[in-house]
Amino acid sequence: MNIFTVLTKDERTHGRIGRLELPHGTVETPMFMPVGTNGTVKAMHHRSVEDIGYRLILANTYHLYLRPGTDVLESYGGLHRFSSWKHNILTDSGGFQIFSLAGLRTIKEEGVTFRSHIDGSLHHLTPEGVVDIQQIIGSDIMMCLDVCTPPEITHAQARDALEITTRWAKRSKMQWLSGTRKTDGALFGIIQGNFYKDLRRISALEIGELDFPGVAIGGLSVGEQRNVFIEYLGHTAELIDRSKPRYVMGIGTPDYILEAVSQGIDIFDCVLATRTARNGSVFTDDGMIQLKKARHAYDQDPIMEGCPCCACTSYSRGYLRHLFKTHEILGLMLASEHNLTYLYRLMEQVKAHIKGGSFDSFKRAYLQRYRISGGQPVT
Amino acid sequence: MNIFTVLTKDERTHGRIGRLELPHGTVETPMFMPVGTNGTVKAMHHRSVEDIGYRLILANTYHLYLRPGTDVLESYGGLHRFSSWKHNILTDSGGFQIFSLAGLRTIKEEGVTFRSHIDGSLHHLTPEGVVDIQQIIGSDIMMCLDVCTPPEITHAQARDALEITTRWAKRSKMQWLSGTRKTDGALFGIIQGNFYKDLRRISALEIGELDFPGVAIGGLSVGEQRNVFIEYLGHTAELIDRSKPRYVMGIGTPDYILEAVSQGIDIFDCVLATRTARNGSVFTDDGMIQLKKARHAYDQDPIMEGCPCCACTSYSRGYLRHLFKTHEILGLMLASEHNLTYLYRLMEQVKAHIKGGSFDSFKRAYLQRYRISGGQPVT
Repeated sequence: MNIFTVLTKDERTHGRIGRLELPHGTVETPMFMPVGTNGTVKAMHHRSVEDIGYRLILANTYHLYLRPGTDVLESYGGLHRFSSWKHNILTDSGGFQIFSLAGLRTIKEEGVTFRSHIDGSLHHLTPEGVVDIQQIIGSDIMMCLDVCTPPEITHAQARDALEITTRWAKRSKMQWLSGTRKTDGALFGIIQGNFYKDLRRISALEIGELDFPGVAIGGLSVGEQRNVFIEYLGHTAELIDRSKPRYVMGIGTPDYILEAVSQGIDIFDCVLATRTARNGSVFTDDGMIQLKKARHAYDQDPIMEGCPCCACTSYSRGYLRHLFKTHEILGLMLASEHNLTYLYRLMEQVKAHIKGGSFDSFKRAYLQRYRISGGQPVT
Repeated sequence: MNIFTVLTKDERTHGRIGRLELPHGTVETPMFMPVGTNGTVKAMHHRSVEDIGYRLILANTYHLYLRPGTDVLESYGGLHRFSSWKHNILTDSGGFQIFSLAGLRTIKEEGVTFRSHIDGSLHHLTPEGVVDIQQIIGSDIMMCLDVCTPPEITHAQARDALEITTRWAKRSKMQWLSGTRKTDGALFGIIQGNFYKDLRRISALEIGELDFPGVAIGGLSVGEQRNVFIEYLGHTAELIDRSKPRYVMGIGTPDYILEAVSQGIDIFDCVLATRTARNGSVFTDDGMIQLKKARHAYDQDPIMEGCPCCACTSYSRGYLRHLFKTHEILGLMLASEHNLTYLYRLMEQVKAHIKGGSFDSFKRAYLQRYRISGGQPVT
């Protein structure tokens, strides 16, 4: 199953432009995916997400499995029909959420047992079951159940986790190819190995041998330093077959996105764009600004000149500050729309610069301006 | 200043169609106004409010005076420019909010002293000051500061309140006509008198003599029984010059709206449409339904067949229930859009039936269907 074609390679970095063919339409990479945990990108109309240009969003298997549950999703014929989102959906495996339930879950060879964070009810999921759930959801891209590990575990612990991840990947692939719920969705493998380069290499080889239509890099962006992230991202990305689309989870600020693109990453997602928006933090080419600050009270400028989003074309920073100070939902709506518009347009610029051979200089100039002005996320 | 023309009178009720000429455009009555307390109708894009058809929204003087404050509003040249709402704005006087601050406010002849519900800071407002604030806001319709009273006060207390209300109305009118901040906005008087018919009559006469361009009926819809509301509404409405637009505050369910129209009321507003929407309660011709209920989990029908709103044309009750159960903002957005669309279309029907001479039978048939199916607001 070959769903990916590399169209253009950047000469100075590993950056590339690709075409990804999915059941709900073809998309161009590199691309950022907005996160729609429960089948809705928070504080956004589907129409607005679509109008910005997004054609692939992420939804969370763990959350959808608990609410509304697979019975409801099955009765609607999947998440596309349930949510009226017409374009592509990628679902994670739920692994990250389940493994975050410290003290509430047990991993065995067979699968994972956990308690719901909502009502404490007991659930058991196997790699096969997770593929089934994603096929009920009707995902265009599904992920294998993997074992996520926190930073600073031992080599032996990391090795155990990656070995289970490989065995689960095999079982997932078998279920995807031969299960009773077959769909047109593609199943991606996930590379683990924590912060051990030899384990990253082993995991990349083992997942590579399974020849999934796409490969994800898991276990990064979990709190490590930026230089560690870049080092392990580069190390792992290089080990993935160049003909496969590469997906890295949890990347969502402009500076991390540009690094990921440089390393040949094609797809990424992050809640940060919409989560920080709901906290009043918005992207600009000069870094993030926090709309709640008093200095914006009389500020008649838009968040960013030239941005075509609804927030920037109609409203001032002063009005947006007022909306946040009075806890008005419109503030969350407008800031979310801005941040998603910003990232979409950043990716359009990235693609244009890769095509034009100027990505590396664009990246350097962008990062200099972004960082000088203190462009760190304000969460 | 004559801003109102009665175009059509209903033969069987006091219902009528009118044209109200305001600085930001002419509107047709009877009309419902969405409430935009802080200069935003909660959980709605301005564009969506406008697309439904609304051309007059209400904003709250008390809230805007505290946040963002008159300095900010003045620097923007008023609320229209600050909020980018291009159409008309009516502001209340803040009286209702201030008098709700039990224990935190003192009424004297000069004006009212109160403490902010936000930070406890002390404020003093006079009738003149309230006109000034509304002129800084740039309201198309301003209201006189009045003394609101709760139900079940004595005749003497109610009489005192209405007497101050009349004296304040005179001072407000003087400020409106001769103040330094003159705008094109119209100032409306407010009739008080609690639940005493003789006092309602006195107040209506005194406010009537001041010849405001419009008259509001205050002190109703404050928790009294439905039949008491209808009785006092009818009694007071009859005392108002028929050539004036009549405004009653706090009316927002279909059944109360139809009663108010029957009594010759031209304008009304209520937070209920949007507040209950945010709680999952939505209007239908068969009464309100609560989307959170379990029976909607598998319900693939829209809230209401034939409704052109975004919620009804794209989403099922099942998906909306899921949004409410997972506390997703899109649920609030869609339910608000539905309820405001529903009331706008109800008013369109009302006007068509007044024009066609069938309003009374429409009202009876509507109320029968609405009530039989248990159409009580679920708050």
